[in-house]
Amino acid sequence: MGDIGGMLRIKLSNRARQTPPSPIRKLAHLAQRAKRAGTGVYHLNIGQPDIESPEEFFEGLRLFKQKVVAYDLSQGNEALCSAWSRYVNKTLGLNTSPEEFLITMGASEALVFLFMTCCDPGDEVIIFDPTYANYIGFAAASGVTLVPVLSDMERNFALPPLEEIEAKMTNRTRAILLCSPNNPTGTVYTDTELKFLLDLCEENNIFLIVDETYREYVYDDLEPLSIFHLAPRNERVIVVDSLSKRFSLCGARIGCLLTTNPEVLSVTLNIAQARLAAPTIEQFASAYMLDHIKDGYLEGVRREYQARRDTLYQALSSVPGISAHLPKGAFYVIVRLPVDDAERFAAFMLEDFSVNGRTTFIAPAAGFYMQNSKGRQEARLAYVLERPDIEEAVKVLEAGLQAYPGRV
Amino acid sequence: MGDIGGMLRIKLSNRARQTPPSPIRKLAHLAQRAKRAGTGVYHLNIGQPDIESPEEFFEGLRLFKQKVVAYDLSQGNEALCSAWSRYVNKTLGLNTSPEEFLITMGASEALVFLFMTCCDPGDEVIIFDPTYANYIGFAAASGVTLVPVLSDMERNFALPPLEEIEAKMTNRTRAILLCSPNNPTGTVYTDTELKFLLDLCEENNIFLIVDETYREYVYDDLEPLSIFHLAPRNERVIVVDSLSKRFSLCGARIGCLLTTNPEVLSVTLNIAQARLAAPTIEQFASAYMLDHIKDGYLEGVRREYQARRDTLYQALSSVPGISAHLPKGAFYVIVRLPVDDAERFAAFMLEDFSVNGRTTFIAPAAGFYMQNSKGRQEARLAYVLERPDIEEAVKVLEAGLQAYPGRV
Repeated sequence: MGDIGGMLRIKLSNRARQTPPSPIRKLAHLAQRAKRAGTGVYHLNIGQPDIESPEEFFEGLRLFKQKVVAYDLSQGNEALCSAWSRYVNKTLGLNTSPEEFLITMGASEALVFLFMTCCDPGDEVIIFDPTYANYIGFAAASGVTLVPVLSDMERNFALPPLEEIEAKMTNRTRAILLCSPNNPTGTVYTDTELKFLLDLCEENNIFLIVDETYREYVYDDLEPLSIFHLAPRNERVIVVDSLSKRFSLCGARIGCLLTTNPEVLSVTLNIAQARLAAPTIEQFASAYMLDHIKDGYLEGVRREYQARRDTLYQALSSVPGISAHLPKGAFYVIVRLPVDDAERFAAFMLEDFSVNGRTTFIAPAAGFYMQNSKGRQEARLAYVLERPDIEEAVKVLEAGLQAYPGRV
Repeated sequence: MGDIGGMLRIKLSNRARQTPPSPIRKLAHLAQRAKRAGTGVYHLNIGQPDIESPEEFFEGLRLFKQKVVAYDLSQGNEALCSAWSRYVNKTLGLNTSPEEFLITMGASEALVFLFMTCCDPGDEVIIFDPTYANYIGFAAASGVTLVPVLSDMERNFALPPLEEIEAKMTNRTRAILLCSPNNPTGTVYTDTELKFLLDLCEENNIFLIVDETYREYVYDDLEPLSIFHLAPRNERVIVVDSLSKRFSLCGARIGCLLTTNPEVLSVTLNIAQARLAAPTIEQFASAYMLDHIKDGYLEGVRREYQARRDTLYQALSSVPGISAHLPKGAFYVIVRLPVDDAERFAAFMLEDFSVNGRTTFIAPAAGFYMQNSKGRQEARLAYVLERPDIEEAVKVLEAGLQAYPGRV
């Protein structure tokens, strides 16, 4: 509390003042300013797909004829839970039931709920570093301590060795949280790795939470793998899922958690009741879409992302000084840049650099690491643009690296 | 942790296991069961208006032509912030700016954000008992201690005397939270009462948070009153607002917080970034609606609720043993029933009682009191049905009171 101009400042909480801005969005104001000044911006910073949302979603939207946009159920619209269950059963060969779903406002809300359900303040969840940056925000919101185990670019960000994970387990560890395919690294964990984590959770009697937002986006010879393939009725397993990326519906804010554990479902529902319900119209349209989406839709999108990945990887490979690993899933890659500080470089690109009136916006990776200093020279790139734009974006990036005064 | 059938149960958090179900929704499964058995249910339990959402909202929905349902800005859609600001400036004579708005998923999310922004875990917020039950859930989620000051049915739930409020202030008090017009009591606080709270917050250098979700629903000779009428540029004032009740858009999940305090806006935005954004399509349609809604719309709805209030109050007045106060705003009233326990009575109505195949669902009031025992004989009734249905619902309630074995 400080005395400013004779008026006492009103105290804000420490947790709020200490909540870091999203590394994906923190430089957004610089991008806005660049755009206002007439500079075109290639957005490699954010996982906002440019692929059109399915026509079936918009059809569902048009079919919404209720006269009152009323609250839906706190656990989620019944038609949506049924449609989602049918959809994963059909496309993945699973055996889920609608009552095992709890619909949330994006995967984000599912994770906040689960942190509250699994952990009291100060309890610990093990994650793998680098991690999806917003996990850090959800942990701050729920008073959970994230305990990072470092994964390594040189090993394609594979699961760290057993002893490194075990060394981080304490009597306050309540869950391991894994995102596979991974944001921000693009790594797809193998069934051996998943089984290994499952055993570890069994031995320690804790939850295994798997964020499968990017499940279908796996490349080369890989097939979509859900933790439920390996442990179909295991009550310590909770899947977090979302329509955001799979159907280019980020703005619909429709996610879910999925578990056969009745106690988790019932206490999480009590928490969910306080926020009443997820949006009614988007749930209605999503249910219609899941029931009517064409069989080939996702395969088409998957192929497109695989081609973009190849384009990006190839383009990056020819840039001197950049190291990148080959991502096997999702639509991200972590790269190491020949710069003193990737955040300063990202700001430089937006504020001071352009080629033919265009610049490239990248997300500095430090914010994806709990151990910030680890990612200081790294950036996350999302390949959510068309291939020619990806190629141009990398050319601009290369030119920017040449011009940047902090190049190392 | 217990040993069940040879398997160790997986530990859930204490906070989750202790989160009470919503008093409004906790008996919903009994209502579902009654409906499945063919019994019609008059819903007086939940503030879900039956009044049609404005045609302008659906027009906005039809005008949404974006091909990708992309994330909107974390602070909210720019057109919506502008439209909402113009709307309150025009209809209330205020002088707000779009950048003073942060769009949230209903008033619910705004309150969770503010608890996190204003309070560290264990910090205190003063509320008035009975209170909107979900405030208790938001406080549990954010680790905030709510400190209730009891208001009194005999005094129409007016603001408690100064000394009773001051007696609850400690060095951990960070805000006073008021809902006016009030849910669950229907009380409208006077400008004298609001000024009084404002002075108290000034003296103690804390925030005044006013939930104005029901602002326009005031009856008899009252005019809509915002705290910003009394303190237009006061940085300790934060308004929470919502389109849910005003436009029968509960399911759209569109709310906001509104303050001239730049520090509150900026740190709350960091928290908001973790959950990415509010739903895109509902924001788009809401912006269109606020720009195009007809001037007379709200006055028509207000008159309808006033007529329903009169119908309900009159119907209740003729029921022996019920005490009710005359609510001046919102669409709720707290009544005292001649029963041993209003929750048992509410369950009895759903499980064991009907008249001509219909029963009445009321919300037991104990869950609206921090001091649970205070509301044991009370219930909250929402007058969100058409007048003939309200009359019938009260007749069924009266007959139920006659038949209930726990009548006192």
